[in-house]
Amino acid sequence: MSDFSIGVDLGGTNLRVAAVTSEGRLLEKVSIETKVSLGPEPAIDKMCGAIQQLIAKYKNNNLCGVGLGLPGIVDIENGIMRKAANLPGWENYPARAEIERRLRTSGILQNHAQVVVENDARAAGFGEHWIGAGRGVRNMAMLTLGTGIGGCVILDGKIWYGMNGMAGEFGHVTVEPDGQPCGCGNRGCAERYASASAIMRMAREAIASGAGSLAQAASSDAEFGVKSIFQLAMQGDEHARKIFRTFGRYLGILLADLVNILNLEMFVIGGGVASAWESFAPTMMNELCARSIVFGATASNAASCAAASNAASPKKETVDSQVPANSLRQTVITRAVLGSDAGLYGAAHLAELANHKFAKDMK
Amino acid sequence: MSDFSIGVDLGGTNLRVAAVTSEGRLLEKVSIETKVSLGPEPAIDKMCGAIQQLIAKYKNNNLCGVGLGLPGIVDIENGIMRKAANLPGWENYPARAEIERRLRTSGILQNHAQVVVENDARAAGFGEHWIGAGRGVRNMAMLTLGTGIGGCVILDGKIWYGMNGMAGEFGHVTVEPDGQPCGCGNRGCAERYASASAIMRMAREAIASGAGSLAQAASSDAEFGVKSIFQLAMQGDEHARKIFRTFGRYLGILLADLVNILNLEMFVIGGGVASAWESFAPTMMNELCARSIVFGATASNAASCAAASNAASPKKETVDSQVPANSLRQTVITRAVLGSDAGLYGAAHLAELANHKFAKDMK
Repeated sequence: MSDFSIGVDLGGTNLRVAAVTSEGRLLEKVSIETKVSLGPEPAIDKMCGAIQQLIAKYKNNNLCGVGLGLPGIVDIENGIMRKAANLPGWENYPARAEIERRLRTSGILQNHAQVVVENDARAAGFGEHWIGAGRGVRNMAMLTLGTGIGGCVILDGKIWYGMNGMAGEFGHVTVEPDGQPCGCGNRGCAERYASASAIMRMAREAIASGAGSLAQAASSDAEFGVKSIFQLAMQGDEHARKIFRTFGRYLGILLADLVNILNLEMFVIGGGVASAWESFAPTMMNELCARSIVFGATASNAASCAAASNAASPKKETVDSQVPANSLRQTVITRAVLGSDAGLYGAAHLAELANHKFAKDMK
Repeated sequence: MSDFSIGVDLGGTNLRVAAVTSEGRLLEKVSIETKVSLGPEPAIDKMCGAIQQLIAKYKNNNLCGVGLGLPGIVDIENGIMRKAANLPGWENYPARAEIERRLRTSGILQNHAQVVVENDARAAGFGEHWIGAGRGVRNMAMLTLGTGIGGCVILDGKIWYGMNGMAGEFGHVTVEPDGQPCGCGNRGCAERYASASAIMRMAREAIASGAGSLAQAASSDAEFGVKSIFQLAMQGDEHARKIFRTFGRYLGILLADLVNILNLEMFVIGGGVASAWESFAPTMMNELCARSIVFGATASNAASCAAASNAASPKKETVDSQVPANSLRQTVITRAVLGSDAGLYGAAHLAELANHKFAKDMK
């Protein structure tokens, strides 16, 4: 008998529920198609059905709780989804209370098991910190590149919430003062340049200005999207490559800002668009190297900058040997490793920790 | 008999030493003219002379230690000035060891009294946190606007250093991607737009493009500088006002980034250029309001944004009444209150805390 928790990831078009042990082993994962955009009630009903089935199946183990990652601004203290740009009807929805009511009524959730809700990007960051790229790293941040940019700051091993639980809004850092307007009211937000929606906007703009290869792909491919543009870029299409260079440039600016402000040990890049890593990482690293004195302060980072710069213009001689040795630890920029499961792991682990805290407080 | 410490602030042209009680009362402050740029030895000699005199004078009290704020990158663990852009000869200078040697040799520093060194912007931020604008605020940041921009992040009441002690490099956050080149290797760093040196650059550029009022002031005023340009701005000179609007715009962008990333309770603006507050604060607040969803999330901040926007275009009707009430705490943006003494207080308090830690570790 081992401890386990349920992690839930609520996306725009589907809903995933997983049972995860306290050692971070995935027992089972189920995916449910549901029109989350139709409002919370039917989705929460289906979700609780799936949770019940999983809990019943693993009833020989000890259930710590249920953790739920939500795409929006979440009031974790009161368990409420405050704002949800892409989910009409979910605003101010008391997600925790509704889940608890259903699961406790059915008797599946015992008294000590906890239900916690969290923003999805934070759940993903916490998952990568727990058993992913950031395992064992005390101070890190994760950037989740999806429709927008989600952020998670982890300091001394704990999620940094800020005064109102709104820390980590990386997507709305200004990277181009007079740039693209953003739904938040600002101009030039990072997520207007380094997200899936930004890639699609740049593709539309390129097509409108006569990028034939992109226009052809868009008209012939019914599922034309980020993946198609990435594939074109990897095949050497200059229009597609330019889009990812712009993407990498602004992501590099955002990263440099974060490195200069926080001087963390690691920055993890995840989310669906991170799969296009090869197409944007070189530009991203070049920008980061040029723009962060903190990043370049360690010999190993300076060496990787020199290598990146050499890769970009291969004729230059290597300058590795000129880099002074020093004892400062390097800033690590790395890809996430848990893929779309990061949020499931993170949410499950948050429920487990809430359970431990509850047990301790009861003593 | 009360506890006291010595705080030292090492500037480019002068050196200030103060005796401060553990309750934050200034016992005495001395200012010494010394060409710090001639190298460390003569300056450290004079400094230790002044420290000795102060300690001797207050010898009926209990000395906790000596804290020193240095203008550069400081390795606080080893007590070394690592880099000092404006102080040739100070690079890799073992400041703590040299001060300790002199003071212990002369018998003035007893065994338990500690010597600590710190970056000057952090010392100032810690001073404002201790007994200044940020008193009682657990999570805050201070921006020190001088020749460049110094930064200090305080989380849970402690200075946040980051992995290599390099956190808080606010001056090198990118605010204009293709902007002014900076000595750090980047372009468009915040301190190229919102510092004393930025004001002087903008004034030179304005004069070169025919800003007659500024040219006249520069040729007639032997001490033409930030203060003169501020006075012109307050008298309504459009060239001078434009400089401070640019300053406020980019400071607002930097602040919005910090608010979005960290969601802290308070941001304190200090340093010499903060005296020109009236000339840049309206633009700064407008930019912050427009660019930070986190800042605008509380009713009180939204109201102050509406007020700022009304002040900027007074014909508009007030929108205060449309702001929804909510319970989120507001982000406070405020001026520093300790002026140029902030660093003296902060350095003294750091020495006191080091003394307490030492005493505790000894037990």
